[in-house]
Amino acid sequence: MSLNDVRRVLQQIQGRKFSRIFFVSCGGSQALMMPSKFFVDSVSTTLFPQHYNSNEFIYTNPKSLGTESIVILCSQEGATPETVKAAVFAKEKGATVITIAMVDGSPLQKSGGELFVKYGHYETADAIDTSYGTMYLLSSGIVDNQENTNHLEKMGESLIRIQPVIQYAKQAFFARVSDYAKRFKDAKVIYSLSSGSNYSQSYVLCNCYLMEMQWINAIPIHAGEFFHGPFEIIEKDSPVILFMGMDSCRALEERAVSFCKKYTDNLFVIDASEFDVSGIDTEYVGYMTTLILNNVSRLFCKKLSIEREHSLDIRRYMHIVEY
Amino acid sequence: MSLNDVRRVLQQIQGRKFSRIFFVSCGGSQALMMPSKFFVDSVSTTLFPQHYNSNEFIYTNPKSLGTESIVILCSQEGATPETVKAAVFAKEKGATVITIAMVDGSPLQKSGGELFVKYGHYETADAIDTSYGTMYLLSSGIVDNQENTNHLEKMGESLIRIQPVIQYAKQAFFARVSDYAKRFKDAKVIYSLSSGSNYSQSYVLCNCYLMEMQWINAIPIHAGEFFHGPFEIIEKDSPVILFMGMDSCRALEERAVSFCKKYTDNLFVIDASEFDVSGIDTEYVGYMTTLILNNVSRLFCKKLSIEREHSLDIRRYMHIVEY
Repeated sequence: MSLNDVRRVLQQIQGRKFSRIFFVSCGGSQALMMPSKFFVDSVSTTLFPQHYNSNEFIYTNPKSLGTESIVILCSQEGATPETVKAAVFAKEKGATVITIAMVDGSPLQKSGGELFVKYGHYETADAIDTSYGTMYLLSSGIVDNQENTNHLEKMGESLIRIQPVIQYAKQAFFARVSDYAKRFKDAKVIYSLSSGSNYSQSYVLCNCYLMEMQWINAIPIHAGEFFHGPFEIIEKDSPVILFMGMDSCRALEERAVSFCKKYTDNLFVIDASEFDVSGIDTEYVGYMTTLILNNVSRLFCKKLSIEREHSLDIRRYMHIVEY
Repeated sequence: MSLNDVRRVLQQIQGRKFSRIFFVSCGGSQALMMPSKFFVDSVSTTLFPQHYNSNEFIYTNPKSLGTESIVILCSQEGATPETVKAAVFAKEKGATVITIAMVDGSPLQKSGGELFVKYGHYETADAIDTSYGTMYLLSSGIVDNQENTNHLEKMGESLIRIQPVIQYAKQAFFARVSDYAKRFKDAKVIYSLSSGSNYSQSYVLCNCYLMEMQWINAIPIHAGEFFHGPFEIIEKDSPVILFMGMDSCRALEERAVSFCKKYTDNLFVIDASEFDVSGIDTEYVGYMTTLILNNVSRLFCKKLSIEREHSLDIRRYMHIVEY
């Protein structure tokens, strides 16, 4: 279990104090760090979190990056060249570097060193062992090390308790994702709205699932920014996928739902509050509901790929041409 | 001139030390703060910068927000309700609050208090007096106050020296913006790529100019993230507007240009390096070239609105319906 690996890593860095935490990755791996960034922002008095695309991190060369920094990097296969380079770069600057990947012995692990956690595949692993779960555990433990709080234990328990809810939510949403996959299969563009920890879901849905894997134009829009420009694009038939979680930013998502209900007939709301999360510590529910949204969203994408007869594995450029 | 106002504000906060700087705004005002965030990230050892949508800031309620925080908020007319509330929220938390707006006596100024700077309209003011210029000056002076550096003077001089280059760039690009406005006028979706301080330009172009003011689908894509998903959407006729500046992240934009040149025939590159910026301190050139891109981009949008016979002032929801 990744919890043991996380505890080992935390043990190794115990006593070190940090003033900066950098979440550095590319694409889907950047998205999966966003909820942990939101968590640190919400609970930590000593750490100010930032997230960066790996190359942006190297070329921006943040001046405050140094020995008081902790940098977490993720790459599924541990082979993303920019992220491997970013790990080397951070180490050269004297930062504490933690890497996570789905495999052992990857270039990323070799660059990062001993502070490594292996996570499980989202299709087969329980929430606590997935990349999202691992990131939540790591972030919790790092804050605990800094501030003598007790997040890790409660986060771990919440991740265990959310597991059956995720399973149930996938079943409960089965008919709806099938319905919307049919309705959206010929869409020329799909919008996705959300905020707080759930913005990660709009980001990964649009960038990775819809644009990369389905070649459908997709626009991730922060629910708070929606009303300051992008909402003008919405028409009666605009396909919108709106994620509603239960974190502190839910009010932003509710406002977006109210608007979209009035102005489009193609609104697909994925609302995690439909499900019974009463067994989960209220302080952590908001972080957990992101995982429900993530799972339902992936189910939708699978159905969409079937409706469109466009496999999620087809690429025209990625790992095929030089870039 | 805003430089005098900035100096007055800096004088008033001299001696206060901060560990956090928050850039808080909505839409176009959020975009215009991004280059200053990038500046602080690039030069400051004591300040770790964050930007937030105003409502996201209030609802996230960052735990580290407090007396050691400085919060800068912008709203053109000073009336954006979320930003006014965010100023009140930040003050209640004990933060030092600076507001900027284009008018005197606005609700934002009243909420923020005496630390206020008025800036000039981008159509008529020189670069140094625009919102972008004002933000650069403020950020420079805040870092100077903290770290005994000398950014403000050099930033001010750079802003004065970039002014004639901006004027020249608009003339030099006149034929090209007219050409691409014709070519892109019937586009169903437009992509915009950039990185570093210039990501602000993709953000404001897509969210405010294209989606809000022209009702054209538009996707702002970070040039570093492009290769980790979104680039799969690019086809031979995809309209792409690619901003190239001269800051430390230019390499990311160059990589995106190389790819797009191969795979689409509809690539519009706005490259600030075409122009003679030899009179500007090399440390500040990258921040200045963003202003060139901003001005050329706005010229393009004007031409586009004429070609499409769709005024930049038409709205269907903003300030018209309730939301």
